[in-house]
Amino acid sequence: MPRPPRGRNIMNMQPKLSDAQNATVRAVLDQVKASGRTALTAPEGKVVCDAYGIAVPQEGVATSADEAVALATRMGLPVVLKIVSPDILHKTEAGGVLVGVKSAEEVRAGYDRILANAKAYKADARIDGIQVQQMLTGGTEVIIGSITDGSFGKLVAFGLGGVLVEVLKDITFRLAPATKADALSMLDGIQAAEMLHGVRGGDPVDREALSDMIVRVSQLVTDFPEIVELDLNPVFATKSGAIAADVRIVVDFDPAPARHRPSQDEIVTSMNRIMKPEAVAVIGASSEDGKIGNSVMKNLINGGYKGQIYPIHPKADEILGYKAYRSVKDVPGVIDAAVFAIPAKFVAAALIECGEKAIPGAVLIPSGFAETGNEEGQREIQEIGRKYNIRLMGPNIYGFYYTPANLCATFCTAYDVKGSAALSSQSGGIGMAIIGFSRSAKMGVSAIVGLGNKSDLDEDDLLTFFEQDDNTKIIAQHCEDLKDGRSFAEVARRVSKKKPVVVLKAGRTSAGAKAASSHTGALAGNDKIYEDVFKQVGVIRARSLRQLLEFARGVPVMPTPKGENVVIITGAGGSGVLLSDACVDNGLQLMSMPDDLDAAFRKFIPPFGAAGNPVDITGGEPPTTYKNTIKLGLQDDRIHSIILGYWHTIITPPMVFAKLVVEVKEEMKALGIEKPIVASLAGDVQVEEAAEYLYAHGVPAYAYSTELPVEVLGAKYKWARGAGLL
Amino acid sequence: MPRPPRGRNIMNMQPKLSDAQNATVRAVLDQVKASGRTALTAPEGKVVCDAYGIAVPQEGVATSADEAVALATRMGLPVVLKIVSPDILHKTEAGGVLVGVKSAEEVRAGYDRILANAKAYKADARIDGIQVQQMLTGGTEVIIGSITDGSFGKLVAFGLGGVLVEVLKDITFRLAPATKADALSMLDGIQAAEMLHGVRGGDPVDREALSDMIVRVSQLVTDFPEIVELDLNPVFATKSGAIAADVRIVVDFDPAPARHRPSQDEIVTSMNRIMKPEAVAVIGASSEDGKIGNSVMKNLINGGYKGQIYPIHPKADEILGYKAYRSVKDVPGVIDAAVFAIPAKFVAAALIECGEKAIPGAVLIPSGFAETGNEEGQREIQEIGRKYNIRLMGPNIYGFYYTPANLCATFCTAYDVKGSAALSSQSGGIGMAIIGFSRSAKMGVSAIVGLGNKSDLDEDDLLTFFEQDDNTKIIAQHCEDLKDGRSFAEVARRVSKKKPVVVLKAGRTSAGAKAASSHTGALAGNDKIYEDVFKQVGVIRARSLRQLLEFARGVPVMPTPKGENVVIITGAGGSGVLLSDACVDNGLQLMSMPDDLDAAFRKFIPPFGAAGNPVDITGGEPPTTYKNTIKLGLQDDRIHSIILGYWHTIITPPMVFAKLVVEVKEEMKALGIEKPIVASLAGDVQVEEAAEYLYAHGVPAYAYSTELPVEVLGAKYKWARGAGLL
Repeated sequence: MPRPPRGRNIMNMQPKLSDAQNATVRAVLDQVKASGRTALTAPEGKVVCDAYGIAVPQEGVATSADEAVALATRMGLPVVLKIVSPDILHKTEAGGVLVGVKSAEEVRAGYDRILANAKAYKADARIDGIQVQQMLTGGTEVIIGSITDGSFGKLVAFGLGGVLVEVLKDITFRLAPATKADALSMLDGIQAAEMLHGVRGGDPVDREALSDMIVRVSQLVTDFPEIVELDLNPVFATKSGAIAADVRIVVDFDPAPARHRPSQDEIVTSMNRIMKPEAVAVIGASSEDGKIGNSVMKNLINGGYKGQIYPIHPKADEILGYKAYRSVKDVPGVIDAAVFAIPAKFVAAALIECGEKAIPGAVLIPSGFAETGNEEGQREIQEIGRKYNIRLMGPNIYGFYYTPANLCATFCTAYDVKGSAALSSQSGGIGMAIIGFSRSAKMGVSAIVGLGNKSDLDEDDLLTFFEQDDNTKIIAQHCEDLKDGRSFAEVARRVSKKKPVVVLKAGRTSAGAKAASSHTGALAGNDKIYEDVFKQVGVIRARSLRQLLEFARGVPVMPTPKGENVVIITGAGGSGVLLSDACVDNGLQLMSMPDDLDAAFRKFIPPFGAAGNPVDITGGEPPTTYKNTIKLGLQDDRIHSIILGYWHTIITPPMVFAKLVVEVKEEMKALGIEKPIVASLAGDVQVEEAAEYLYAHGVPAYAYSTELPVEVLGAKYKWARGAGLL
Repeated sequence: MPRPPRGRNIMNMQPKLSDAQNATVRAVLDQVKASGRTALTAPEGKVVCDAYGIAVPQEGVATSADEAVALATRMGLPVVLKIVSPDILHKTEAGGVLVGVKSAEEVRAGYDRILANAKAYKADARIDGIQVQQMLTGGTEVIIGSITDGSFGKLVAFGLGGVLVEVLKDITFRLAPATKADALSMLDGIQAAEMLHGVRGGDPVDREALSDMIVRVSQLVTDFPEIVELDLNPVFATKSGAIAADVRIVVDFDPAPARHRPSQDEIVTSMNRIMKPEAVAVIGASSEDGKIGNSVMKNLINGGYKGQIYPIHPKADEILGYKAYRSVKDVPGVIDAAVFAIPAKFVAAALIECGEKAIPGAVLIPSGFAETGNEEGQREIQEIGRKYNIRLMGPNIYGFYYTPANLCATFCTAYDVKGSAALSSQSGGIGMAIIGFSRSAKMGVSAIVGLGNKSDLDEDDLLTFFEQDDNTKIIAQHCEDLKDGRSFAEVARRVSKKKPVVVLKAGRTSAGAKAASSHTGALAGNDKIYEDVFKQVGVIRARSLRQLLEFARGVPVMPTPKGENVVIITGAGGSGVLLSDACVDNGLQLMSMPDDLDAAFRKFIPPFGAAGNPVDITGGEPPTTYKNTIKLGLQDDRIHSIILGYWHTIITPPMVFAKLVVEVKEEMKALGIEKPIVASLAGDVQVEEAAEYLYAHGVPAYAYSTELPVEVLGAKYKWARGAGLL
């Protein structure tokens, strides 16, 4: 197959189009719109592809045998010859088609034969010429396409062609526009990626040409939002090019209006006032035990919040020792956030008062909005929020915690263990699990935020705030949907370069998605799209609630690894095997041990200890063996991370092990050496105390599990790779 | 394509062969052996396939056009015609081949034409006739084959044909001989199973014919162990049959000798004496703290063992208050088990004395055998064991616990929490993790056994013992290899019908397998084979150490479900979504809620609670709402299992929830209603106590996790399905 036209070198840049090319596509779309169609014809599709340098089979009409030969030679042989005549509808029947025409001589002979056949078939037919069309053969059939997702907007897709791939759903997505790097990652991102490398002696595909086509398609649909679906199916990918044999383009000239998004500065300004307020009003504050407005007041007070607290109550003069006001408008000073603890039906009126008082944030605890079918009520408060420029958290939430300000703006129990993880949840139940786990695991947090119905504030607002919040080192979010996946992805792409972003996307599976739908009325997205987009923008995906929590706890305590080489040092060979399994499961690379390093380790371990990686120091060893091998692991530059497998023995009891690990770690740190270390502890219950000690000293450690420590290290690596640090 | 020969109806039975058919295959193999070959020729392969009713293309030689027409009509059109002549080597060049001959008329004409062509090509050629061969077209190309695995022996394999399937490694295995049900499960057991149902308007395959062929292949390789590899590739599977287009058979006339296995009765007799001994000798008993022989003595004594304890020591008269002996042979009474706590080099001599004393079991704690490269030493003790009929546990182990006899024959700490889970581990480290977890989680065990180097006793011996041990309800095993996978599978198939068998197979992944190899010198098996065989014989596979432990803890406390319908009842919609995700992940079926049942649930929950399944009772509900809905779930016969999602609130605090669940459960139990219930608890740290209470009362419950309770329920279902109880 001949090399298709390539256009400019676009490695790491988007193809730039001339105004003329753009105008060509615009003209085609205008024509489609004018004729009231929703799809392009094949010739229109070809014009669009040509304008964007997307290779389609070349073709031309010849009116002489010489011209046919010239055309065929230019586009490359073999070709297909077809009669062009308005009077001949059944070309094949008329002997008007020749496929697989392989040489100039055959083209010449074919031209004459078709003409003769046509005349024999219908003597008086008007003949406009013979179409010469590039013939696509061989290579690997792939699909390149684009869809418009309700949450993520324009996506570009890639997969192999054929029914087996359809059955296996082996297709990958990226946000459009896709960079060259995105496009190349798609070629590796399908299960059957090996097929593209050439198997059983077949040719590898031209990765440059294929990825180029992906980039161009993604740019086309970005430039022309009215293109809602596009399919190049099949694309013939050979070792020297890629040509789309068929083009299908669907348009929609009446797209949904874009969602309002405040600017990044506006978000940061409002969010800083809401999360770190100097004064908080509690609308519906109460002196009565058991009332939500009472719990909120107590939590603010007992949580140690130092700012102003203004209880708002229609009648009371004072609540829990604080002067009460009839309305926020009666409060003399500035208010940064108003926590709502009143029934849904009173929210709108109170919110207008907040607007008149110029309060930038409303924390809407009340339920009774969209989640109970009251869409109208939710729309009403959204409109008030927009009108007065009040950001709304919720409704239908437990509130939020921001520990650096000792702020517990919630009806749940107070929480005060300060730390660097900021968590959020769409669901109140999950929020409570976050609080319980955090307290139990002694995981310090900077914030816990309930997002509930997400009438306004959502995951990307939080990302934007936590990005610039020096108290936060990792952001972990539970969500059931993303109202604006496109915006989330764009923010997450930026933020994840600086701080790990972990997301537990509930409703992964079809049964889960159905439950999500009945819970929030949100349309659950296609899980594969979430999977691919999260990866594209550097978001670490948690597979379970426990993973979300463990990642939030473990990832920030470790330094960032400087490379991919992981070494396992273990006292239990059995743990070594399971830890190795876990490394593969979590995409970690067990270092292939260099001979000199192997020899260096061997000096410290018994002669029957196992060579290589895992380093099996064997079970009966004293503390010095652990110490020497761990120190060597930290000192050698070729090793980037260490996984420890401890085996409880009388000779090296759990706390002795834990303390020696911390000691070696601190000693190396003083010399400027810091590497991630995680530990799996096998032993009697004393290992639990040892694990806690290790965790408190920056070594994520787990008793009775060979999986969890490796999952946490794996998450750190995923982040570092996504942020371009590896 | 014509329907291939089918043979007898063999649903649920193995094909029975006549002696003549058997003799036919034997004759072919004898001939192959005599000629010193390791593979069969194509005609030999066809003879073997014919004898076993494995359809291959039909063929015959015609010496007249009439005969050719008769043959073609009998085998079905289209056919291929080929000249048969010793003098014409290049048949195609001679015009001696016609493919796709479609009608009787074409066969007749073709016969004449080939003869004419042949004569024109070589006038004096001897012509034996024209071969008429069934032509295979269309249908789905599949592969049926067999391999001989070092551990599992004869396996039959099934997959789709084609390079994409090879790349995706989409193939499934079963032990041979395979039943019809096994074979049918293979058709559903590949990722691309949907292809066999007919996609894009294609025909479905003939499942009967395909599964029949699988069964026949599996029977063939079982009947003739010298067939070590067999490939039918491709097999053309159409809607009306299956024909193997190509047959490849590899033989080995010098197979490895079968491993010695005692009879089931012998195993039970020895194991009962070892696990429930009336007298134990400690060879290498010591009074000195820190010595292994001292720890073993203390554990026996402090563990509360009521049988005789005989310390064996070369010099001491008394150890820890027990009379000591120079040798087991000096002990006056019968000894059931000897625990070895002496260096490796002294083991053989002491073992001979045990033999002479007719002790049926040796617990070989010492290391220094195969795991350190001392294969010779291990072989020596194996031979002594065989000679004297002593079963050997280990060497290189921590010993074992059998709690019903208060027996701690180990150097680890004593363990005394009695329960119904029997656990074993190949690795000492994992054994210590079992002990620690069990103590921490208050998981009662019946036994914990170290298997170490498995010089003799292995997983299937333990299965055989625990099968008939009334103190054991579930068997959970960690292993890195199975020395005799065939024997394990056969025993597990039987035992898993009665008691759940859970296995954590370490070395799953290639990195893990490599570490396993260096650890035990065992050749790690192909993980896909373990996966498929475990499923075939009803073994539940644990994916992680924690799963092994949680399954051992949770599966036996629940009753067996009576059907597949699972209902989630949740206070937190967010938990409901995650629990639904987990149901799909764990192969559980969320019941499609009948209208009347939906209405019945709705009577108990607020109007805005979500319909269907999950039953979302919403967050602010009092205990009665939980109580009413759980009771309804237990009472309605259509519901078979319940998953609870609790959300911590002031209105229904954690312990109130836990107690009401147990109360309803007990109330229903008194009425004869028992169903599995598991719970996920989202809330502040008080939920931990509630989870513990629930677990102690037969409800596996987990704080801060929506996955673990569903995984445990999923394991119960896997077992029930495998045991044929569902």
